Formats: sequence, structure tokens, C-alpha cells
Amino acid sequence: MVQNRFDLESYLKERSKKVEKVLKKYFPKEKDYGKRVISAGKYSVFAGGKRLRPILCLVGCEIVDGDWEKILLFAAGIECIHTYSLIHDDLPCMDDDDFRRGKPSCHKAFDEATAMLAGDGLQALAFQFFTHPDLVKNVNKTRLLKAIHVISKAVGFEGMVGGQMVDLLMEGKKGTARILKWIHLNKTVRLIEASILSGALLGGGNSQALKALSSYGKNLGFAFQIVDDLLDILGDEKKLGKKTYSDIKKQKLTYPALFGIEKTKKLAQKYTEKAISALKPFGERAQPLKAIAEFMLNRVY
Amino acid sequence: MVQNRFDLESYLKERSKKVEKVLKKYFPKEKDYGKRVISAGKYSVFAGGKRLRPILCLVGCEIVDGDWEKILLFAAGIECIHTYSLIHDDLPCMDDDDFRRGKPSCHKAFDEATAMLAGDGLQALAFQFFTHPDLVKNVNKTRLLKAIHVISKAVGFEGMVGGQMVDLLMEGKKGTARILKWIHLNKTVRLIEASILSGALLGGGNSQALKALSSYGKNLGFAFQIVDDLLDILGDEKKLGKKTYSDIKKQKLTYPALFGIEKTKKLAQKYTEKAISALKPFGERAQPLKAIAEFMLNRVY
Repeated sequence: MVQNRFDLESYLKERSKKVEKVLKKYFPKEKDYGKRVISAGKYSVFAGGKRLRPILCLVGCEIVDGDWEKILLFAAGIECIHTYSLIHDDLPCMDDDDFRRGKPSCHKAFDEATAMLAGDGLQALAFQFFTHPDLVKNVNKTRLLKAIHVISKAVGFEGMVGGQMVDLLMEGKKGTARILKWIHLNKTVRLIEASILSGALLGGGNSQALKALSSYGKNLGFAFQIVDDLLDILGDEKKLGKKTYSDIKKQKLTYPALFGIEKTKKLAQKYTEKAISALKPFGERAQPLKAIAEFMLNRVY
Repeated sequence: MVQNRFDLESYLKERSKKVEKVLKKYFPKEKDYGKRVISAGKYSVFAGGKRLRPILCLVGCEIVDGDWEKILLFAAGIECIHTYSLIHDDLPCMDDDDFRRGKPSCHKAFDEATAMLAGDGLQALAFQFFTHPDLVKNVNKTRLLKAIHVISKAVGFEGMVGGQMVDLLMEGKKGTARILKWIHLNKTVRLIEASILSGALLGGGNSQALKALSSYGKNLGFAFQIVDDLLDILGDEKKLGKKTYSDIKKQKLTYPALFGIEKTKKLAQKYTEKAISALKPFGERAQPLKAIAEFMLNRVY
């Protein structure tokens, strides 16, 4: 593949550093009797995530000519939601994973009750960030309310939570490609799509731009989850920060399980191409999103 | 006590019926692969709660001359948050309660993973309701964003989640009145206060009204939690829909445990009087809130 001359690494680093800074600044202080649960939330939020979703939110804003530095609190809120979902997902009654990002998962570093509460607190914190006066003063309020609606829907019963439910229900069962696609769509794709869309909404994007970004986000999301499934088999435990073959052990319904590795790789490629082709209306401005899609696909090669 | 001629029962019934109707109308439909978790959320939301918090939100709106029928979706969202907190609270890793409102608790009727996800989904659903187009069109957007901020803060790390954490941490330990008050403040009082305040914000209340209602809400909240502690000892299991003496069994830090029953009764009385006296600026309009405070206190006599 021809090397993209766009310097993605610096681009991502600049944005993730700013997200990091805002998360640190606005995260509740570890004081008072309740500090244990705040520490647990902090532990997971600052465990070294790639900040993919908040960055996608910022890029969504930028690509429609919005000022991404004005919506950092919104992006930080999205990361809180993502982190809450990982904490709850790792709990014994769910996926029962002891490691996350190379460190003990939250309930291992603390305990189950604290981890559950930390997840609950992070979800609430996201919406505190979304409605924080320091964000509200920067953006159009109608668009902000729409963006919050988009995110809350994407992570609710008819989104992430529903996807998690079916992901669990299908463990050890024979599933079809249709069910698997439904799981991916809800468990992963909707929040990734909503991250970009909310940024574009806040940045002032018109309906044509929102439509193109929604198509990019959907296809990127599918590619991302398929690559994630592949990494569970082909990935390096140290780089991943978690055990490989965990999907197989749990008899999860995944693309490699259903179609084998080669066909799954081709699927990831196909979704990535579709994502990139949705960016046409943006011309040169699409470079960061294009580079992100290629970068994500190449994790697996 | 002189009987209040105000017909509280009809007043509450009219409002709770409308909250019920909106909850039913806007609750996600039990369709598609993910219907199990939606069923679990519905099971708990429609398990016969008193709808106290949403009603307080509506009264907060009404007392400042707002149109309470226009903010029903906001009130319904508050009930979703309250229900999510009960579901998570009942889980084995938390209070481990098998019954709630006279029925098996959510994780008993379904299972732990489903109950946890149903709670997560209900919290997201609350914010979906708060930003629903059918609500947004009815209210001032600046005030709506403030109201969402107030609620999200009240139920987060520095509110309900923090209170739950310390409530658990203090089990079996010798606590002081200061810690106990902190637990009540965060676990219970903040959401009750925020419910009234958000309604008053949406109804267009000025800062003087908000201040008075905040004082009412705080004192009502403390009275409510103290009465709740008393009911655990003095209450009727059938009416409560849950086992009595559960606080004692779990060695929870409560007012009766700390001060005995008589002194605790007097405390509840004191908070109720303070709540009512905060209503002075509203004159006759305060009748519903006054009646609610008296009604709540009288649950224990």
C-alpha cells in the first residue's frame, strides 16, 4: 500500500493529548468519603486508551469547518461512556475479563461493586460534560441537544446495551451472519458513528455532510469490529494488553468463527474501502479520516 | 395533626398516570434480537413505583407557573434513572436484595448480566428522554441544558454513585452522624432535590424560587431517607414490598442504629418542618409540596 504522506501519528497525538488534558481537568477530584469510586473511574479512564472515539468526534467537527478545540468536553464525555462500557463488560457476570489494556481490569484492581459504580458514575459524568457550562457557551444549543440525543440513543437499549445483551446471549450458540452483523452494529458501530456525527453536528455540518459522515462512520465501525475479532486470533498479547483467543474460549460469535480468517480479512478491507469512498464530497479535507480508516485496517496486517 | 383539606391523593394520581402514559409511549419496543434487556428494563420501570421523583419534578414546574404537562418526558427520564439505581443496588455485588416492590428484583426475574445491562440502558434512556425532540420543542433550551446538568451531577460520582459507594463501605463499620448524613445527602437527597429543581428550571423559575425549592428539596430528601430507615424497622412488609430488618441484617449505618427510634422520629419531624417552612415565599401555591412532605412523614406513624 502506498504510504500516506499525511502525518497521522502527530495528528492523533495532538488531539489525544488535548482530550487527555480536558479529562484530567474536569474529572471529579479524589476527595471526601466517596473517593474510592472516583479513583476506580480514574484508573480505567487513564489506563492508556487510544481515544479513538473522542478523536473521531473532533475530526467530525473539523471536517465540516468547526473549531474542534471548542468541543473537547464533548469528546471527553464520549470517552467516559466508552470506558464505562469496558468496565461493565469486564465484570464477572458479563465477559469476566481480568485484564484490560495490559492492566488488571477495574473489578480486579478494586472490586465488583466499586467497578459497577465506577461505570455508572462514568456514564453520568459523560452527560455532565455534555452539558457543562464551559461547553454550552461554545456551541449552538439546538445542535448540542441533538448531539446528546444521538449519543444517548447509540449507547442505549437500541444501541450498545442491546448489542452487549445479544453478544452474551449468543455465546456458545450457533449464530448466523445476520445476527452477527446486528451485534456488531449495536455493540460497536453505533457509538463510533455517533461520535463522528455528534462532532459534525456541533461543528455546524449540513445534512449532506452528516449523511456522508454517517456512511463513513458505519463502515469504519464494522471494519473496526471485524479487525478486533481478527486481532483476538492474530494479535500480539503485549500490544493488545489483553489475552488473545478469548473469543474462542468463550465461544463468541465472530466473523473468523463464521467465515474463517481469509474471508474475514477481505470483509474488513471491503468495509474500509466503503468508508473511504463515502468521504468523496470532502476532497482533500478527508485526509485524516482516510488515514484513520487505513491505519485501523492495517492493525491486522 | 390537622387534616389537610387539599386532595393529595387525586393530585398525585393525576400526575403519576400521565408519567406512566409517557413512559409507556416512549419506552423502546420489545422487538429484535435485543428484546430481553428491554423487557428487563420495562419489568422494573413498571413494577409499581410511587413515581415520587418525577412528580416532584412536575410540582417544581407548576409552582413557578410552568406548564407541567409539557415536561412529562423530563419527569419520565428521572424515573428511569431512579429505577436504574434500584436495579443495580439490588445486585448480588451490591445490596443483594431478592425482592423489590413485592416482586422478584430484576436480576432474580432475569439474571445478573441482563439486570446490569437493563440499568445501564435505563440511564441512557433517561438522557434520550431529556433530549427528545418532543420535549426540546416545548422548553427553553438553555434551561433544558441546565436541568440535564443538574440531574447528571446529582446522580454521578459527587452524588448518588458516591453515596452508594460509601453506604456499602460503611456496612458493618462504626460510623458517625457526620458520615451518615453525607451518605444520605448523596445517596438520596441530591436526586430528590435535583428533581424539584430541574422542574422549576424548566418551568421558568427565578433564582429566588430555585433557592427556596432547593432548601425544600434538601430537607424533604433527608426526611424521606430517615423515614425509609425507620420503615425498615417499623414498616409492614406487605405494604413495603420488601423484607424489613434488612438494614440491620446488613449492619447498615442508619439513624435508628445510631440514635434509636424515638430520636430518629424527631429528626424526621424536624426535617419535614424545615422543608415546609422553606415554602413560605409561595403562599397558597405551596399546598401540594406541603401535603407531600406531610404525607411522606406520616408513612411512619
